[in-house]
Amino acid sequence: MQTKELYQNRINRAGDWLRENGLAGALVADAEARRNPSLTYLSGMPMDALLFIFPRRGGGGESLLLPWDAILADQLAWADRVIPYGEYGRDMTEAVARIIAERGGLSGEPFDLPSSLTVYQFEKIAKAVPADQFLCREEGFDRTVEKFRERKDPAEQTVIREACRLTDLLIDEIAADVKDGRLSSELDVALLLEKRSRELGGQGVSFDTLAAGPGRSWGIHCHPSYTAGSFAGPGLSLVDFGLRFQGYATDVTLSVAAGPLSKEQEEMAALVEEAYRIGVAALAPGVPASEPAAAVNRFFTENGWTMPHSLGHGVGLEVHEAPWLKDGEIGHTPLAEGMFFTVEPGLYHPRWGGIRWENDFLVTADGVEALTHSRIVRVGKR
Amino acid sequence: MQTKELYQNRINRAGDWLRENGLAGALVADAEARRNPSLTYLSGMPMDALLFIFPRRGGGGESLLLPWDAILADQLAWADRVIPYGEYGRDMTEAVARIIAERGGLSGEPFDLPSSLTVYQFEKIAKAVPADQFLCREEGFDRTVEKFRERKDPAEQTVIREACRLTDLLIDEIAADVKDGRLSSELDVALLLEKRSRELGGQGVSFDTLAAGPGRSWGIHCHPSYTAGSFAGPGLSLVDFGLRFQGYATDVTLSVAAGPLSKEQEEMAALVEEAYRIGVAALAPGVPASEPAAAVNRFFTENGWTMPHSLGHGVGLEVHEAPWLKDGEIGHTPLAEGMFFTVEPGLYHPRWGGIRWENDFLVTADGVEALTHSRIVRVGKR
Repeated sequence: MQTKELYQNRINRAGDWLRENGLAGALVADAEARRNPSLTYLSGMPMDALLFIFPRRGGGGESLLLPWDAILADQLAWADRVIPYGEYGRDMTEAVARIIAERGGLSGEPFDLPSSLTVYQFEKIAKAVPADQFLCREEGFDRTVEKFRERKDPAEQTVIREACRLTDLLIDEIAADVKDGRLSSELDVALLLEKRSRELGGQGVSFDTLAAGPGRSWGIHCHPSYTAGSFAGPGLSLVDFGLRFQGYATDVTLSVAAGPLSKEQEEMAALVEEAYRIGVAALAPGVPASEPAAAVNRFFTENGWTMPHSLGHGVGLEVHEAPWLKDGEIGHTPLAEGMFFTVEPGLYHPRWGGIRWENDFLVTADGVEALTHSRIVRVGKR
Repeated sequence: MQTKELYQNRINRAGDWLRENGLAGALVADAEARRNPSLTYLSGMPMDALLFIFPRRGGGGESLLLPWDAILADQLAWADRVIPYGEYGRDMTEAVARIIAERGGLSGEPFDLPSSLTVYQFEKIAKAVPADQFLCREEGFDRTVEKFRERKDPAEQTVIREACRLTDLLIDEIAADVKDGRLSSELDVALLLEKRSRELGGQGVSFDTLAAGPGRSWGIHCHPSYTAGSFAGPGLSLVDFGLRFQGYATDVTLSVAAGPLSKEQEEMAALVEEAYRIGVAALAPGVPASEPAAAVNRFFTENGWTMPHSLGHGVGLEVHEAPWLKDGEIGHTPLAEGMFFTVEPGLYHPRWGGIRWENDFLVTADGVEALTHSRIVRVGKR
């Protein structure tokens, strides 16, 4: 599939949705304070731009991109029209008002503004153009594009499979180096990932590597992300990392259980291993995303523990996106072909440290496939 | 100054402001989708929490922290009370409603909600508790804390001076290694920074290092941030980076002009050097932040060029914060003691590449002091 065709197809799907829902158009906004990778999904522009989408009379949609960096847009983005954001003073209100005016108004149909708009941003726009023509809601166009993105299309699946293959190479390198004693600081682990992720053809890591030695693994997300401190010494260490490849992220956690462990640490490791098996066994197309999460939570509760985060989350252009493998209403979405998500049970204790086991899974026509193969690496005396 | 005292002083200042403005309290929120380092400024908590602040009857203020990671809060944060966010189902609406109810309501005074709230988040809270008791505005409590943060206090200045001293060491290392031909890829430069920033005692880099060789330096912010591609070969390369030290960021750019340069590239380098001198010469306490920006813009325009970004910005807990060295209304703030900001003129061309010169400056009682000493490094034949 050609790139231009890929984006035009997505814009057409978006345009059709706008027409079917009686909307005059929609705006997607990405800025430093509020990232929205739907910009990239719909135009290829990696960041920092406004994207207007309007339904076409005969079907499909048309797009207008206002990039902060026009040279970058020229190299990487696709849209029907591109106008540098600077021509609108890089001001969202001015851009919305002038672009709608150029089109002769909204013809009585509402225009869908980004769900991320703050109260005062919305008020400014509503003052510049009559307010009753705008919608700004949780379940608007932004959410619709998130739903598109929740199920990866074949082009995305190809990219994701390659991203996971490369991630597995990194996992194997870390496991081998830990066993051979070649990685002894958090910095060693993180720099290996920075370097190898790029040498393997990736765009780098998908988020700041979280490498926590035995003294810091109690944090769900350790802070700072990595230090010059020790890694993989006696006790529990973990490294939570991902690779970014052609825009798409992976997200895995490898834990190191280095003996001699205390009785409590052994118990934590055994519980997380069993919880992982329970979570993975509960995955199947059609099953609500909350079910594996509920099964794992039950298991931990029965054993006197609580997991302080959800079981997993979708991954894609964002490291955290739908679906949400979480107990409760948010996890009602049934697992469906093309969904790509993590399963990551973990336990944490201020003195004994933390342990997490996280891999990435893709729902296929046949079932649910593990695309990465991270693990709990055991070293040292038992 | 003790840490506890530092945070209590800031909470007291915030509480006094709330009382003087007839407000019942305020909420500061930091989450993955919307970071707000004012959380850290007021409590030491690095991220992922809600912080309620209420004025005390007799003067000062009291704080209630709801951290996502309670263990992390126990290690790093300070507040009058700490309750895990999980006890409110990690739901902002529930937390606001219950905490206000526990206090017996708002006694008729309005409560200031985060300016970053989206339209639908605000509507949810307004539904749970009567709407006329809430304010959610651009110029509310969040902006007030940003104004506090705009002028660094003595404790912050001490940290910032050390962060800049370490940054200068990194600048000198890169300059020396480039001259000796030891840094030949973007990856080399970025990994050197990742490693050395931590070895020197920093928390790492303050943002993803932007290392762009001659083929990619046309981007204001190159994408991806660094690759395995070449750096410092003939033409214009640049590296935009910062160090984070005890929570505080620096932000500098070192450009490499490697001969032989084309006539156009020589012109760009000469213009940026002159623009830097013009910008720095225009800095002085009491001068509106827009003035140096306007002077540089005039200079570029007279020479037939346009700079596609502003001249500079404040730095602190955030890499980009107030004051804004930008032509126009946003730059009306006069430079005042304790302000810490960048000056960074740059020019970019799709074929010839980009060049930028960026350093960090602190306004002191005596004037404006350059705390970092980056530069345009010239190598190769002229």
